[in-house]
Amino acid sequence: MQYLSKWFPAVSWLRHYSRANFVNDSLAAVIVTIMLIPQSLAYALLAGLPAEMGLYASIFPLIAYALFGSSRTLSVGPVAVASLMTASAIGSVTASGAVDYVTAATTLALLGGLMLIALGIFKFGFVANFLSHPVVSGFITASGIIIALGQMGPLVGISLRGDNLVSLVATLNQHVQQAHLLTAMIGFASLAFLLFARFSLPRILGVMGWGKRAISLTSRSAPVLMMLVVIPLSMFLDFEARSVPIVGAVPSGLPVFTAPLLNWSLITELAMPAFLIALIGFVESVSVGKTLGAKKRERINANQELVALGAANTAAAISGGFPVTGGFSRSAVNFDAGADTQMASILTAAGIGIATLFLTPILYFLPKAALAATIIVAVLSIIDWKILQQAYRFSIADFAAVTLTIVITLSAGVELGVLAGVGVSLGLYLYQTSKPHFAIVGQVGMSEHYRNIERHEVVTHAEILSIRVDESLYFANASYLEEIVFDQISQKPLLSDVILMCPAVNIVDMSALDALNEINDRLRDLNIELHLSEVKGPVMDSLQRSDFLEKLTGEVFLSHHAAVSEVRSKLLSR
Amino acid sequence: MQYLSKWFPAVSWLRHYSRANFVNDSLAAVIVTIMLIPQSLAYALLAGLPAEMGLYASIFPLIAYALFGSSRTLSVGPVAVASLMTASAIGSVTASGAVDYVTAATTLALLGGLMLIALGIFKFGFVANFLSHPVVSGFITASGIIIALGQMGPLVGISLRGDNLVSLVATLNQHVQQAHLLTAMIGFASLAFLLFARFSLPRILGVMGWGKRAISLTSRSAPVLMMLVVIPLSMFLDFEARSVPIVGAVPSGLPVFTAPLLNWSLITELAMPAFLIALIGFVESVSVGKTLGAKKRERINANQELVALGAANTAAAISGGFPVTGGFSRSAVNFDAGADTQMASILTAAGIGIATLFLTPILYFLPKAALAATIIVAVLSIIDWKILQQAYRFSIADFAAVTLTIVITLSAGVELGVLAGVGVSLGLYLYQTSKPHFAIVGQVGMSEHYRNIERHEVVTHAEILSIRVDESLYFANASYLEEIVFDQISQKPLLSDVILMCPAVNIVDMSALDALNEINDRLRDLNIELHLSEVKGPVMDSLQRSDFLEKLTGEVFLSHHAAVSEVRSKLLSR
Repeated sequence: MQYLSKWFPAVSWLRHYSRANFVNDSLAAVIVTIMLIPQSLAYALLAGLPAEMGLYASIFPLIAYALFGSSRTLSVGPVAVASLMTASAIGSVTASGAVDYVTAATTLALLGGLMLIALGIFKFGFVANFLSHPVVSGFITASGIIIALGQMGPLVGISLRGDNLVSLVATLNQHVQQAHLLTAMIGFASLAFLLFARFSLPRILGVMGWGKRAISLTSRSAPVLMMLVVIPLSMFLDFEARSVPIVGAVPSGLPVFTAPLLNWSLITELAMPAFLIALIGFVESVSVGKTLGAKKRERINANQELVALGAANTAAAISGGFPVTGGFSRSAVNFDAGADTQMASILTAAGIGIATLFLTPILYFLPKAALAATIIVAVLSIIDWKILQQAYRFSIADFAAVTLTIVITLSAGVELGVLAGVGVSLGLYLYQTSKPHFAIVGQVGMSEHYRNIERHEVVTHAEILSIRVDESLYFANASYLEEIVFDQISQKPLLSDVILMCPAVNIVDMSALDALNEINDRLRDLNIELHLSEVKGPVMDSLQRSDFLEKLTGEVFLSHHAAVSEVRSKLLSR
Repeated sequence: MQYLSKWFPAVSWLRHYSRANFVNDSLAAVIVTIMLIPQSLAYALLAGLPAEMGLYASIFPLIAYALFGSSRTLSVGPVAVASLMTASAIGSVTASGAVDYVTAATTLALLGGLMLIALGIFKFGFVANFLSHPVVSGFITASGIIIALGQMGPLVGISLRGDNLVSLVATLNQHVQQAHLLTAMIGFASLAFLLFARFSLPRILGVMGWGKRAISLTSRSAPVLMMLVVIPLSMFLDFEARSVPIVGAVPSGLPVFTAPLLNWSLITELAMPAFLIALIGFVESVSVGKTLGAKKRERINANQELVALGAANTAAAISGGFPVTGGFSRSAVNFDAGADTQMASILTAAGIGIATLFLTPILYFLPKAALAATIIVAVLSIIDWKILQQAYRFSIADFAAVTLTIVITLSAGVELGVLAGVGVSLGLYLYQTSKPHFAIVGQVGMSEHYRNIERHEVVTHAEILSIRVDESLYFANASYLEEIVFDQISQKPLLSDVILMCPAVNIVDMSALDALNEINDRLRDLNIELHLSEVKGPVMDSLQRSDFLEKLTGEVFLSHHAAVSEVRSKLLSR
């Protein structure tokens, strides 16, 4: 049982599942199902895929996540950023015509799914840590802008291709005179209604004394209300005959399980985008899971989430879907609607299944412009300009990372954008650690505490140089350490002892060991003793594996105060 | 004058240049010139180039370095590893036949030279720090093996192509029956003589009471002695007619200055290898310069060295040479022969110039097998297996980096080998910092010093949790910090205060700030106060640029002891 619940967190809530839980989960499932129908269709179109794939991606992936996921309220399915990335990835492989869109999309989901499962099993979740918060925020903001701009096309009845700002603006500019008046009217009317429901309605309902959850659910059900108005209009005014682009024939019935086509050249082409989509999706999903989890004192297990999202994507791949992940808005609706457990997601999957069986003849009439409006309003919430301002105030490194991520994503597309963000973050971190901060320290008053002579009132001695090393010593900064020490020595003629204070040294690698040996040798030639203080356990262990401690002219002291006291008494006794 | 000597370190020694210096430098120049003639020819052939290019690469580059270099005894020119890398780089671009070897080699030198100058001017020397000592040692060892094995071909009169172990062994195996008996005899006889002169002669001379320098110079002059025997033999026994491969016609006369052909596609193809050759060469050269400098209390300036090596390579490019760098054996001979200043190199350049004017008719008869023997003996000294053992003892990370560098260099060639080494070093460093060491600390006896409860006898309190964070907090480990803190909290029911002891935190980035805010929020919900202690100046500065300190439930203390004392008196007063 212990073992089962380790791999299937579902076991732990199923054991105590009550009738009350079922009532709550059923209610949440009805609300989420209704909200998901327009969203699923919209994201399939955003990904450049047939509308039904959006519905398929909202059935079996939900069941797979329900079995493996560690969050009780997270809801998986197609989301905006992953759909844009999917569009970009399959756009490039299908350009030659050798592969169709559906095959490319399912292959992408399969690759991403298997990669996530592998990362989870081997406990490699830490790779996601290399996507820093500012980079992810910047990337999502830039993606939101690209998505919103891209949907301006369908909103007015023209088709746009392009996954970056430059090509989108160029094609928009080129085709704008082909805009279709009636389509544009439908699009802008839908947009206006959704914007009202999103931004003004909550305030109005708030003034009327509605509760927070009721307001949130009402506001989020706006896309369904819009459909309930637009679809009948489309049927009776015969939008199709008036050349308004509509969703059209959606095959009715449940998805058919198929083994994805395994084509080696396609796999190699899609491996990188699949990895990036999976990773960004994972980061997004875990962040949603944590936010909701915090409200219910629930812990999210990153490696378990990798397995669960991997299973969800694999399920999407074999049931005709495309890459999925935990989405913020759908999970928030699920939570607000009172879902207790993942049973709500299983019931939602059943709901979407019923919709694909019976609602497709009605969805036929839905104008694509209305779906475009849905997407535009949805992505407005992920565009976060504040991150730029926060990063600017906080540090130049974070600001550089977020700015570059936004600029490259907007100008060169999503894949390069993410990669550049990660590259710049790592590069800046390595640059900072390669020129670390060093401080000359002295005694604070009569305490045993030693701090930077430039920031505190401290006592120092002409014969003793105390240098605090503020970084792990490794190959990237080993030679810099030598420079700093020799620079300081040349300024202090009376020097007899150098003490390197190492509370911030967490690693010493072989290159740094060479540098320490070099420093020790050269100080010995100058008749200066080298001591170390506050060397931490793990570092001491590695020094003991070399012959450095035998060659060291001075000693290693537990505390810096002990080092200074000892050295002073040695000097006085001369 | 100050300004001049900043860019031309030569100015500082020229001002005090004496007749005694000139005598010393002239003597050294004669000895180095004699040693360089066979070496230059050999490395040109190793690089797959006409023999005269080796001589050209030993004239103007020496003068350029003499003007700009910060070492007084470093001697630049063709070296083994850079020649192998050159062979590998030009082998791939000339395979199509569109570009000849000479153009490719000069372009490579020009690109590398300009890159080094640019790195020097913009003070970007730190990039070389990312080549860690174990990676460079491993790479040079693997290169030495490839070179030695590759020279087994010319040693026995067959031609070998290939820049990795697999292809070399395969072609050697395939062609070995075509070996030429007389050539092989010359080759092995030369090899035996050189090995004797290298390893046995010094011991014999030592027993006879010779001085160290005299022994070193005699031993190193062996290749010249060998030439003095082999060339007359070749002339009188007419090796050429007996199908022994000889150096053949070498154009006599000084190199002609030519602007290298600028071809964009060639430049893009050679940019990466040029960068790697330049960087490896720079690291090798600085290490040689430092070793010699230490003996004369001379400081090597890394950025000035970049400019000087860049100038040397640019000079090589426009005078028909190929990539050069500071070599260990040639610099050691220069040093041992008593060179005082770079005037020795200028005179050496003149000496090589004279050789190209007058000696080429004699060099015609030199068997290539003898040069192969020279190279084999020369590279034996760069093969360093001890690095593997040292790394194994020291740390698994260093061992992994050096092993992978050696394996990939041997199996996939020099370029991938270096890149893999750098990649693995960085990856392992980042992995280590992404799962940093954390320690629960307590008070050591009655001191003000706090150490790991698992390693020291310390005093702790049930209400106070002191966690020492042993790493900078940044995006790669931000979520790990959260995990550690919450794990600890769940084990301590009486907890009222958490103190994060931060002497090892050198950077806090935005992702880590988010994590700290999250920790602070969740502890507040649990009625636990969060404090920080020993936050270093630069970190405090960045925290002050955010609103974290306003939200912090507890305080920031200068020392951990102050934090614990304060918190305890607060708890007692309740």
